[in-house]
Amino acid sequence: MNPELYILGSSSATPTRERHPSAQILKIESEKILIDCGEGTQSQMIKYGIRHTGINTICISHLHGDHYFGLIGLISTMSLMGRTQSLRLIGPPGLKQILELQIEQGGMSLKFELIFIPTSMDKFERIYETDTFEIKTFPLKHRIHCTGFLISEKKKERNLNIERVKELNIPVNDYKKIKLGENFTNGHGETTMNEDLTFDPPAPKSYAYCSDTIFDPSIAEYVKDCNLLYHEATYMRNLEDRAEMYFHSTAEQAAKIAKLANAAHLIIGHFSSRYDHLGPLLEEAKSVFSKTSLAIEGEKHLVKIHNG
Amino acid sequence: MNPELYILGSSSATPTRERHPSAQILKIESEKILIDCGEGTQSQMIKYGIRHTGINTICISHLHGDHYFGLIGLISTMSLMGRTQSLRLIGPPGLKQILELQIEQGGMSLKFELIFIPTSMDKFERIYETDTFEIKTFPLKHRIHCTGFLISEKKKERNLNIERVKELNIPVNDYKKIKLGENFTNGHGETTMNEDLTFDPPAPKSYAYCSDTIFDPSIAEYVKDCNLLYHEATYMRNLEDRAEMYFHSTAEQAAKIAKLANAAHLIIGHFSSRYDHLGPLLEEAKSVFSKTSLAIEGEKHLVKIHNG
Repeated sequence: MNPELYILGSSSATPTRERHPSAQILKIESEKILIDCGEGTQSQMIKYGIRHTGINTICISHLHGDHYFGLIGLISTMSLMGRTQSLRLIGPPGLKQILELQIEQGGMSLKFELIFIPTSMDKFERIYETDTFEIKTFPLKHRIHCTGFLISEKKKERNLNIERVKELNIPVNDYKKIKLGENFTNGHGETTMNEDLTFDPPAPKSYAYCSDTIFDPSIAEYVKDCNLLYHEATYMRNLEDRAEMYFHSTAEQAAKIAKLANAAHLIIGHFSSRYDHLGPLLEEAKSVFSKTSLAIEGEKHLVKIHNG
Repeated sequence: MNPELYILGSSSATPTRERHPSAQILKIESEKILIDCGEGTQSQMIKYGIRHTGINTICISHLHGDHYFGLIGLISTMSLMGRTQSLRLIGPPGLKQILELQIEQGGMSLKFELIFIPTSMDKFERIYETDTFEIKTFPLKHRIHCTGFLISEKKKERNLNIERVKELNIPVNDYKKIKLGENFTNGHGETTMNEDLTFDPPAPKSYAYCSDTIFDPSIAEYVKDCNLLYHEATYMRNLEDRAEMYFHSTAEQAAKIAKLANAAHLIIGHFSSRYDHLGPLLEEAKSVFSKTSLAIEGEKHLVKIHNG
């Protein structure tokens, strides 16, 4: 199944009547990865019918409140609902101390382990992986410690050409090796090449999350060829100076990164509360990179293949 | 003007589709006092059109998340909106460390002072006062440090009987003393008694907030004769054992406190998420204390006079 991205919050800094601070959920394989967790994220999940069971990994980009103030509330609710499964928290080193202090002062006794995995500003690193996907972090240029996330499916096993495999009477025990790419040699020493026995698997897909950051072309290297890129677009071009001053980006700059990175698709979000209507931000981005969408709360985005 | 109470949150522990965690605003004289500040309080304020300017005092009962997780977000928004006026935070001693840590880690530079006033579990004390009202705190029996709040108008000046005052040609300079209760003696040594020159002012009104607490009749002493009592009612009578185990109260127990205290009116809230319909909780309380209302988000309650 294609990974799917659910937008729970799209506002920068402060909530508005229509928008909540940053939060997204990426469904990948059987996992739900929560990316940033602004205040009210748990209420947004209730509103959009997304259960918090199945979330075993949470990625926090940085410790500005609009990206993590909802986390302790979500952890508290998970605890009250009887969670026992450990929870992985990937984020800035300071996150651990904040959460542990709140847990202690609130007299909370969690029945599950919090596994803190601190992000680094010094490298592009694989910070977590399973059999089916991996999460890499990379530094973003913001006012405090801040990283982006690149979440990628791993290369999948090749699909068997069942018709051909049966025709050749290949024993079931050999299927695994063939799916991993090996050729097959029968008892008479006759070899059949792997490409005659298998089809290409679906190409692994990747999702990149970049919020918050000043315009920084070096980001394009980290997220090169990703299938879906989320990039913050706090302002429009006419406020480019303001964007630079606060280490944020414009819609046009987000689109430039998508183009440089050869992303298949771009989503822009983290909109300043000054914008009641988002159409002009979308148009600005599309003038540079046509395959752009807005992050609209409650909407789902498929992480699609290139040109798909 | 009568003090007015605005309910922003009425849920216990976790938010539901319909209810948010505890938060209320008491408008008293020209002040807005925020009492508890669960996650999403700032969004509730936006929803109900309550501006955060004019909030100079925030009372936090205890450090369970459903009573304060929205505070740092509100402070952050106040800061981003350019607040310069100092903000008084009355709450458990641990609150200071938590907020200061989050401010530090987020690189926030507030342009206004946070004045922390720690509550005590050992006494019934006047913790803050102005010319027109005072705030007292008293211990509640919960699982962690937790206090209630009694917010009372001060006795007002007497109202001049303007007709009589003019009839007697009393100089304007003497009005102030007369309003404070003095008699008036003219140049001929003739004295007019104060009750002939003034009317009684409106009786001072008081609002008491009790959340969270096990059933504790000693609370009635602290909130004796209050005009409006808010008392938590997490459960119904059939879950009285559960209420006791978790140091909470039932609707019936809340009503018993109101009756013991001779409150003019009772509001119950902090409802368990198990209750979709609140009618039965109201009926249970009313069977003991008829002048009971439910805390419904978005609703306003007047702090009325006794029998008013």
